[in-house]
Amino acid sequence: MSNEGRKAVVLLSGGLDSATTVAIARERGFVLYALSFRYGQRHAIEIEAAQRVAAFLGVERHVIQTIDLRVFGGSALTGEIDVPKSSDIAEVGRGIPVTYVPARNTIFLSFALAFAEVTGASDIFLGVNAVDYSGYPDCRPEFISAFETMARLGTKAGAEGSPITVHTPLISMSKADIIREGGRLGVDFGLTHSCYDPDTGGTSCGRCESCLLRKQGFAEADIEDPIQYAEARRS
Amino acid sequence: MSNEGRKAVVLLSGGLDSATTVAIARERGFVLYALSFRYGQRHAIEIEAAQRVAAFLGVERHVIQTIDLRVFGGSALTGEIDVPKSSDIAEVGRGIPVTYVPARNTIFLSFALAFAEVTGASDIFLGVNAVDYSGYPDCRPEFISAFETMARLGTKAGAEGSPITVHTPLISMSKADIIREGGRLGVDFGLTHSCYDPDTGGTSCGRCESCLLRKQGFAEADIEDPIQYAEARRS
Repeated sequence: MSNEGRKAVVLLSGGLDSATTVAIARERGFVLYALSFRYGQRHAIEIEAAQRVAAFLGVERHVIQTIDLRVFGGSALTGEIDVPKSSDIAEVGRGIPVTYVPARNTIFLSFALAFAEVTGASDIFLGVNAVDYSGYPDCRPEFISAFETMARLGTKAGAEGSPITVHTPLISMSKADIIREGGRLGVDFGLTHSCYDPDTGGTSCGRCESCLLRKQGFAEADIEDPIQYAEARRS
Repeated sequence: MSNEGRKAVVLLSGGLDSATTVAIARERGFVLYALSFRYGQRHAIEIEAAQRVAAFLGVERHVIQTIDLRVFGGSALTGEIDVPKSSDIAEVGRGIPVTYVPARNTIFLSFALAFAEVTGASDIFLGVNAVDYSGYPDCRPEFISAFETMARLGTKAGAEGSPITVHTPLISMSKADIIREGGRLGVDFGLTHSCYDPDTGGTSCGRCESCLLRKQGFAEADIEDPIQYAEARRS
């Protein structure tokens, strides 16, 4: 492949979207530099999932950056707002959800940009999705495009004629599409973690926005989800 | 003033540029939310300067965010490259300097954006300067403008019609202009710290890029620099 040996920075949360994104970047021939964040998220267990996924998919280097988004407050994922529960998938995706973390993808991409510049990578992969997460402004294609423009103007590499490309291979996929693609590429979804709820002792609640989308995706893809849900154990 | 009571996030490094920027935002009537970073800089003493300046200029809240830019490597300000010394000011400003930290202003502005969104501020102040720091791609007006565009598209506030403005009041000023403006606004430059060299025991080396620009600026402004330089003590 034409990308053989080229380096790419991949943002890796430990969820199934980012795991599939890593697998896509690998299939395209890139040497992988994964970047994860401890950002005060209540579901810090996803970092362990990220480490498992990075090892499984053979990344060259995995950097975990610690930042504190709690100091600013303002989101159910980092603050004191309860993670919303709903048994109705139709409630998901209307407007900007309370689980939106201000400027999160901007911050994550900015660090990826620094990592790319230092590593000599011209490519960044980000597993955002504009279908299921239409309510998040920083998951939209026009945001990604604006970030690339800014990155070209604001970095040494960009100023010297080597712009950074931000790849978002999942952006138009449904969750079921992503699961099928990850399955095709050999991703072990049992290593991934999607649940937003921190109080489930390492399993998944099955009722938060993220669990609902995941379960619906596996159902639509007609693939069995290998992870355990807390609600299933109760029934 | 029309801004009376409006909130602004101000990036505050502890140097004289950012101190003057805080004073300008205050004069314009904003309630001030200052943001500083421990980013693995070798000159961490500037954080103490930032705290002194924030207290002196009456900021409402001062958040210090800890991040690790050393993990990526690649700059004399964070890595193992020696801070360049030159007695010739003409050496400063040619090309992209080794003290450039990859994507630093992008990262700093991204956090400021999160802080602004959570705080309800629509204004960010950044003391970048395109005159003395023409070699830094992320100090150029076109970069700032691209960041605003990205911020408008990538935030809840922007998506809902309240874009963020990034003010760079120093961008066209010489160092002497900045010192005169800071002086007019009552900034105590004795509280600020500019030196890039970490090995001077709390004073300033007088020979690094930053010290040279500072000294030249005070000389041109015909104002006495209240800080101590190590080289002066040796002579």
